[in-house]
Amino acid sequence: MGDPAGIGGELILKAVERLAQSSIPVVVGDLSVLERLWSLLFQGGAPAFRPLHEGSPGSPELVQVSSIGDVRFGMSDASCGKASYDYIMEALKLLFAGEVAAVVTCPINKKSIRAAGAPFVGHTEMLAHYGGAADYVMMMAAGPLRVSLATIHVPLRQVPVLITAERVFKTIAVTARSLEGDFGIPAPRIKVCGVNPHAGEQGVMGDEEEAVREGIDWARQNNIRAEGPFSADSLFHKVDSDAYVAMYHDQGLIPVKTRAFARTVNITLGLPFVRTSVGHGTGLDIAGKGEADPSSLIEAYRVAEAICAFRSRIAP
Amino acid sequence: MGDPAGIGGELILKAVERLAQSSIPVVVGDLSVLERLWSLLFQGGAPAFRPLHEGSPGSPELVQVSSIGDVRFGMSDASCGKASYDYIMEALKLLFAGEVAAVVTCPINKKSIRAAGAPFVGHTEMLAHYGGAADYVMMMAAGPLRVSLATIHVPLRQVPVLITAERVFKTIAVTARSLEGDFGIPAPRIKVCGVNPHAGEQGVMGDEEEAVREGIDWARQNNIRAEGPFSADSLFHKVDSDAYVAMYHDQGLIPVKTRAFARTVNITLGLPFVRTSVGHGTGLDIAGKGEADPSSLIEAYRVAEAICAFRSRIAP
Repeated sequence: MGDPAGIGGELILKAVERLAQSSIPVVVGDLSVLERLWSLLFQGGAPAFRPLHEGSPGSPELVQVSSIGDVRFGMSDASCGKASYDYIMEALKLLFAGEVAAVVTCPINKKSIRAAGAPFVGHTEMLAHYGGAADYVMMMAAGPLRVSLATIHVPLRQVPVLITAERVFKTIAVTARSLEGDFGIPAPRIKVCGVNPHAGEQGVMGDEEEAVREGIDWARQNNIRAEGPFSADSLFHKVDSDAYVAMYHDQGLIPVKTRAFARTVNITLGLPFVRTSVGHGTGLDIAGKGEADPSSLIEAYRVAEAICAFRSRIAP
Repeated sequence: MGDPAGIGGELILKAVERLAQSSIPVVVGDLSVLERLWSLLFQGGAPAFRPLHEGSPGSPELVQVSSIGDVRFGMSDASCGKASYDYIMEALKLLFAGEVAAVVTCPINKKSIRAAGAPFVGHTEMLAHYGGAADYVMMMAAGPLRVSLATIHVPLRQVPVLITAERVFKTIAVTARSLEGDFGIPAPRIKVCGVNPHAGEQGVMGDEEEAVREGIDWARQNNIRAEGPFSADSLFHKVDSDAYVAMYHDQGLIPVKTRAFARTVNITLGLPFVRTSVGHGTGLDIAGKGEADPSSLIEAYRVAEAICAFRSRIAP
């Protein structure tokens, strides 16, 4: 459900009946928040949530984690951070117990989970930690445009320091493996961005491209069809590659969100389970107002379904 | 004409008759390169270039700067860098003598002009130097989406160091002045990006946003309608501001080129003359092959015409 003060609850209420058409969504969160939102924003009968194991396609389930009481929409704080964290831990338990096939997350607030004492920057880092995954990769996707990130939630200042040949290679390799094993794309083609403007323009503007080039070489030695480094500004006006690897957050997210904001999905590659997420934030400025667009949640759910279906075909 | 080994000559040949419909284009370059390109790529009669002062609408002029001899398309070197530099210097002379109203540039190769001994990173820096402009700003535009850059052709590593409140303020102020004086937009609204992912998300990921915030405050104290800093990844899926200010090259260029690659135009604000440029590079990989798209050159020329027309209305 994500941060209870954010738009997560509203997205779920708007999307859950559509999601329940093809599989059983299990909402992990707080029924009192959902009920309050329903009475605030909607007319008519609220969606009926069943307890775990009692739903069916067409009928969603809900696991009540805790009751946060009188949440003020748009005003996240440590108690909301604590609740968000608890939802994730419960979802992980359900995953590890084999009760659910995938986890799809609504947005949390980084400051709130930090205020609650959670030692993670965000969802992705938390799920990777408890999943025991060292080489996980964050991918943002909108339809055929898929962009993996070599660095994620770090200050821009740290990016040039963090870009090593090994990191670039691992990002390419995890992406290639996931394109084959999760998306069913054999021998995928991957284009890699440089770090600097014009990918350094032959060394005139920065030299981090040497590490990028070395990482690409390693990938090619491992029979991965990787190419680059390319100048990132001219790379995304057409989609001519199965995936792209960006060196940092804005370089990778700007093209995806600029092309298809509402449909952008966040997918974590390299985890021992299937995890997708909405591509946007908590929307504290519009929380509780009925303005939130559930397109990204619906798309994230569909991508998780597709990955589960493909995995079950190749590994029954 | 830009780098003679690049696509500049081909763009001019493809565009010049259309450009000559509403004003007189003066090509500053090398007739022998244009003639060789024509015989290589086109059928029928070549465009007739007249000497300076002898053209008319419908009939372009050409100023022959030097003859580079047997240029190999796609293979730029110091001699091409020298030629590119000489074209710019000649264009500047024509500007300063009042012979032309604006300069529109085709792409040059940064490595080649450096090899030729020119102490500039690119066109923009060179024109700002000879124009005596300390507070110039590079803007990339595609139709209504206009993005100014606080830093341009520097390694990514230097960006966090270079972002100061003063630099942010100047970029906003030059942009606002140009929107009013060149584009005819009264009291323009300007949205400003942060440096870090999620604009630092309240200090969780970097603190350069403090300088950005201070720069925005100065702008507001000067009655400029500036807002931010915003998270850059979520800012460009709709155009709801007269201009945006990005903190660095890829942050600003990716959204413009992703939305409208072929129509992207580079405009230098804050110069004592009108200067626009194509939004792309020398295209060495496709030079001499007939594949170059002149849309950006045509758009750059039209923007220069529009600015000249607006300036002449307000300052006859």
